[in-house]
Amino acid sequence: VRATYILGRDGGAVDVSDRGLAYGDGLFETMLVRTGRVQRLALHFDRLRQGCDRLALPLPETSELLSRIEGAAATVDNGNLKLILTRGVGPRGYAPPAKATPTVILLPASASVSPAPTLEVATLEMRLAENVKLAGIKHLNRLEQVLAQVELANLDADEGLMLSTSGAVIGGTSRNLFAVFGQSVKTPLVDRAGIAGVMRRAVLERCTELGIHAIECELGPEEIARADEIFMTNALVGIQSVSRVDGTALASDAVATRLNLSFGPPESPAVDG
Amino acid sequence: VRATYILGRDGGAVDVSDRGLAYGDGLFETMLVRTGRVQRLALHFDRLRQGCDRLALPLPETSELLSRIEGAAATVDNGNLKLILTRGVGPRGYAPPAKATPTVILLPASASVSPAPTLEVATLEMRLAENVKLAGIKHLNRLEQVLAQVELANLDADEGLMLSTSGAVIGGTSRNLFAVFGQSVKTPLVDRAGIAGVMRRAVLERCTELGIHAIECELGPEEIARADEIFMTNALVGIQSVSRVDGTALASDAVATRLNLSFGPPESPAVDG
Repeated sequence: VRATYILGRDGGAVDVSDRGLAYGDGLFETMLVRTGRVQRLALHFDRLRQGCDRLALPLPETSELLSRIEGAAATVDNGNLKLILTRGVGPRGYAPPAKATPTVILLPASASVSPAPTLEVATLEMRLAENVKLAGIKHLNRLEQVLAQVELANLDADEGLMLSTSGAVIGGTSRNLFAVFGQSVKTPLVDRAGIAGVMRRAVLERCTELGIHAIECELGPEEIARADEIFMTNALVGIQSVSRVDGTALASDAVATRLNLSFGPPESPAVDG
Repeated sequence: VRATYILGRDGGAVDVSDRGLAYGDGLFETMLVRTGRVQRLALHFDRLRQGCDRLALPLPETSELLSRIEGAAATVDNGNLKLILTRGVGPRGYAPPAKATPTVILLPASASVSPAPTLEVATLEMRLAENVKLAGIKHLNRLEQVLAQVELANLDADEGLMLSTSGAVIGGTSRNLFAVFGQSVKTPLVDRAGIAGVMRRAVLERCTELGIHAIECELGPEEIARADEIFMTNALVGIQSVSRVDGTALASDAVATRLNLSFGPPESPAVDG
């Protein structure tokens, strides 16, 4: 499938009839760039492809897409590259056009802010709605995260702890969560709400390589309260240890430290949704 | 608050960094236009204002907004006007900018297709997630409706019947639903999922004027199955009687007919999300 490409470094514009604007009908990826190269591109691309499957959205021709991504990343030294993929311009109405021409927007950004080593986290009132058809993928319907950030701005915390409407712990506003209990690492399932983060997947794989027992499972707030250690992950800022949850200090940062040593230090810009 | 206005009749473009595109961070209204004037403008404007409150989104200065709407509608004879209001251009990240300059996009369209008098409806597998913070308002996060239309395209039906994830009947993909039981008219609550349609509100008010007992309440699929009559509403196509639900014929169209006579016949274009 041929796509319309827009490189948005210095401005750039999208048709007012693009379905990404009309309905949030699309996906995005926010990728870390170091010395002009996208980090963990295969994982980002894999999630993008899964998102296309779930939304019945045509994936643009792969070799051109990858070469455009590499070209945009090459314009950045250290920073990030945001990719937005939409179903493209369409007629009015929710029904997708029979033959969509996807729009791909590439937004490279240089950035050199260092992430904070630790996070203070506060449980948010804003909940994440549950829909198995939309959970896990990084689609453009992100009002829940926007309203979570509005709430967080009035709290004395760096990140929010978000629960699903049925009360399960899902993660942060723009980070996945891991909780350590003794020798076990647990991260919430993202099959009903939440996003399957690229760094989350990298951490799960690295745990296996390091012989750390790590699983995806349902986690309740009461389990968070008795965790030995909590850390959060994001493709741009890597792994950050949580120092406090709702004011209560965590005892350990041993697993986060071990993983960070294994991956190398995070050197990256501010968090992005 | 000053806004950026974009009139999209013959193309037009939006900044790639607009939050409407990035996160669906905004609202829309699709308004019927007859002889150059928006119908039920006060109801549309009221819902838009409620949406701004809920999303903490600055409402553009009212007199300019209304005059721009009237100006755009005047370019249409019979058709419709779609308005998209976003939080405007912002830096990366879910957190809204401290001072947002909203973007207002006006998309007038001439159209003269007559709506079908009756609808055949099929229950969809696609569910509507429940979030009290987002229910009722007409925000731009509409992937559920898009996927519902993808499903509907493979069914032999004109509209879908959508349930919430907890199993309550909510409405169609782009229509609200009313069910008649004897002398009572019921429409689903939209406080956990769904959109509070302008035509839905107009019908509830008209029922009161006509002495028809009409209430908002929770409705289950089993109640739909034993309704005497079902009709659906939408600001562009008005009131349409439902002839069949999942293949089963409905006995009556008396209330829909009475309401349609009261409002005057629908003369309007194809349905729009």
